[in-house]
Amino acid sequence: MTTVVQGCAWNRADAASTGSAGAAGAPAPGSLREVAMASRGAAQIVQSLTDEVGPRLAGSSASRAAVEWAVRTLQARGFANVHTEPVTVPHWQRGEERGAVVSPVAQPVQLTALGGSIGTPPGGLEAEVVEVDSLEALDKLGRAAVAGKIVFYNVPMPRARDGSGYGKAVQVRGAGAIRAAALGGVGVVIRSVGTDQNRLPHTGAMRRDENSPTVPAAALSIPDADLLHRLLTEHKSVRLALILGCRWLPDAQSANVIGEIPGSGAPDEIVLLGAHLDSWDLGTGALDDGAGVGIVVNAAQLIGSLQLRPRRTVRVILFANEENGLSGARAYAQAHQIEAAKHIAALEADAGTARAYALRYLGAPEGRARLLEIAAGLKPLGIDFDDADAHGGADLGPLRALGVPMIDLAQDVTTYFDFHHTANDTFDKIDPEALAQVSAAVALAANGIANMNGDFGRVPPDKRESNRGGLLRMSF
Amino acid sequence: MTTVVQGCAWNRADAASTGSAGAAGAPAPGSLREVAMASRGAAQIVQSLTDEVGPRLAGSSASRAAVEWAVRTLQARGFANVHTEPVTVPHWQRGEERGAVVSPVAQPVQLTALGGSIGTPPGGLEAEVVEVDSLEALDKLGRAAVAGKIVFYNVPMPRARDGSGYGKAVQVRGAGAIRAAALGGVGVVIRSVGTDQNRLPHTGAMRRDENSPTVPAAALSIPDADLLHRLLTEHKSVRLALILGCRWLPDAQSANVIGEIPGSGAPDEIVLLGAHLDSWDLGTGALDDGAGVGIVVNAAQLIGSLQLRPRRTVRVILFANEENGLSGARAYAQAHQIEAAKHIAALEADAGTARAYALRYLGAPEGRARLLEIAAGLKPLGIDFDDADAHGGADLGPLRALGVPMIDLAQDVTTYFDFHHTANDTFDKIDPEALAQVSAAVALAANGIANMNGDFGRVPPDKRESNRGGLLRMSF
Repeated sequence: MTTVVQGCAWNRADAASTGSAGAAGAPAPGSLREVAMASRGAAQIVQSLTDEVGPRLAGSSASRAAVEWAVRTLQARGFANVHTEPVTVPHWQRGEERGAVVSPVAQPVQLTALGGSIGTPPGGLEAEVVEVDSLEALDKLGRAAVAGKIVFYNVPMPRARDGSGYGKAVQVRGAGAIRAAALGGVGVVIRSVGTDQNRLPHTGAMRRDENSPTVPAAALSIPDADLLHRLLTEHKSVRLALILGCRWLPDAQSANVIGEIPGSGAPDEIVLLGAHLDSWDLGTGALDDGAGVGIVVNAAQLIGSLQLRPRRTVRVILFANEENGLSGARAYAQAHQIEAAKHIAALEADAGTARAYALRYLGAPEGRARLLEIAAGLKPLGIDFDDADAHGGADLGPLRALGVPMIDLAQDVTTYFDFHHTANDTFDKIDPEALAQVSAAVALAANGIANMNGDFGRVPPDKRESNRGGLLRMSF
Repeated sequence: MTTVVQGCAWNRADAASTGSAGAAGAPAPGSLREVAMASRGAAQIVQSLTDEVGPRLAGSSASRAAVEWAVRTLQARGFANVHTEPVTVPHWQRGEERGAVVSPVAQPVQLTALGGSIGTPPGGLEAEVVEVDSLEALDKLGRAAVAGKIVFYNVPMPRARDGSGYGKAVQVRGAGAIRAAALGGVGVVIRSVGTDQNRLPHTGAMRRDENSPTVPAAALSIPDADLLHRLLTEHKSVRLALILGCRWLPDAQSANVIGEIPGSGAPDEIVLLGAHLDSWDLGTGALDDGAGVGIVVNAAQLIGSLQLRPRRTVRVILFANEENGLSGARAYAQAHQIEAAKHIAALEADAGTARAYALRYLGAPEGRARLLEIAAGLKPLGIDFDDADAHGGADLGPLRALGVPMIDLAQDVTTYFDFHHTANDTFDKIDPEALAQVSAAVALAANGIANMNGDFGRVPPDKRESNRGGLLRMSF
């Protein structure tokens, strides 16, 4: 069932107020670029979402408030066909959480439950710690060394502009608890998957499998992981205590929120701009993914404000529950399966606040030249075309599987993982100028695609599966 | 009563192992400098204290463990006359603490009780917020605008190499609760006194006065103070809820810990090197003041390792409870009042991990030339003599009042207040090379003073009072 919210008519007055200066003929990419670079709309949207809603984990009452906020915001910004589409989401709740080294010295450590962890018994859990640096190393240790212990996965994440350090480090977050349980481990702590040195642990989803036993699992802040490592180096035995009050509640109802800039010539052909509306509960989700929401909403609004409406429809989708299981992504692909062939391209913004540096393509080989033409307009923003395949973003995986072409605007994520999934993900980290650059690039790319002659075909069948699958994907 | 711990004899073997290469005649400052700059002893001491003891707030069981650690450490490092001197300390305990904006939107905020705050009623406290930027602004608002409200002191601290932004910002931490209570306020939140953008609030002592009513008081992390300010700008009324479980317990017994490098010629004349052993409870006190402990213990040990023992005694004192009321400082000055005239100079290290850049003097005008001569030896470390009066450090105030000359080695505190009094004050923030530079400078200065002909006289009576007094002093 689709809940349709009354969409207000596309607001010409609003368009004029954004300072659009499109020519009467072809859209003028120069002027769109200038207007977009001067716009602070993306940052204003992030501020509104984070100040007026705040943290919005799937299933929480705040996540419902976020849906209302999104409908209100898209309507106020003149989108057409603003509506919600139902999504069933898991409802996991964090509770009290505490940790401490209890011997050979007693001192508290900062930790937070991984999303989806089971809780500890009410009195908590105490055991000796065994440290490993990979899943393979744990398996090598075997049951005799692991049974009855808390497994400490200590895998550092290297800092990199393209976030390439994430893939390896995140493996233990996803699979660590099940693998530890299989060898008789009683709990898991991981070194936070991040690049900072703050005592703010990084949460994030862990794998859940009805058929596999699991154990309570938490992330230590990086300084606390360093401490535990030093103590394990100096002492024969280190014992850790943890209390995790997290728990699973019955599934809840949520929604993807959609709004459109209707195409003037081929309104049934869709250029999809996505971001996710949900966030983890520790911060206010300003970077992840308030920034993406601001980028795509502002970009589409700017396209709508052009005097010459694009030929194809630019559709914005704000996905429910990316973080804890990609429910919104699956629901959209399922509900729009028949329409998938009409999706000319899809782009997701989900990489924080920093500037974009590369444009990437994944579609039929013969379509690439069309994007290269559009890429020329992004060059003045400092964005180069990159021959590597686009990936698409976590929420676009199911569409990619259906053959929908993917466009990436790669942002510099050098500092993104200092804040990712922590309490530190707040509005003060937003860089309004950088966000304007990304939003300008999205606007130029989407407008170009919405107006280009021909299309990108379909993603070749051998490239439709995300390169890592599940939690180990390259998107964040 | 003085508890004397059996001091082991000054250990020549240990001295040799530190690579001392002092000449048979006058001590060779060049070689002391080189050995000290290469030493990583200061950082090792900080690691040992923070890993093996951790947070050590006055009155806590860990603060007792810290005293044992200090005695053990000074003995193992070959100090003579290692002993403790009793200090009665206040015992304040942090409990559960939580805060949230409850209207016009509901979202949690990160806060921590100020040291010495009373707790809220068990169910917490909820009230409308009134924001001011100074104590004076609060007084101007008057009772009608303040009664029944939570006062939000929003005073930013500018970043500066010399920490000069601290003095003004810290005033509301000290006096804010009593001033709010006087106008009928029911609670206080301050913008953390710090220069970071982390969601880690900065605690710190607040004024306590048996005769003045007070209210529960907490520090918001800086991003949360920014949020509250934005909400108050956008909305007519903002309500905040807080629960502080902190409480006062009966005074506890603690100790100053002392060890000496006995003088070879004038052992009753003392060059005092101080740092404080206690820390706040949120971090492990690596910067505040583990670093100072490492700097002075290592510096004195290096002096002791010189082939030529200095003429005067170099005494290291690790003060109890600097943070929550300067108990150790007062106890030492009282117990050693008669001996004060024999204190040739005193220096305290209590400014974190970064390099020293200036040497300052406070004593009789005719003594200044003697320090200038010693200062020449610090020039190769990048340290200049600065004509401004030395201040002395918080724990040295009572000695300064007695006329004891003060020496400052000013460290660069540009980033110190990113971590100060937060959970982020942990060992990973220590820069071993910079710490070696400071320790080398302290060793050179103390050794020079211990060997110089003549002395610094006494601090002129009009300069014996700390320039700001109490909590508003320039030391941190």
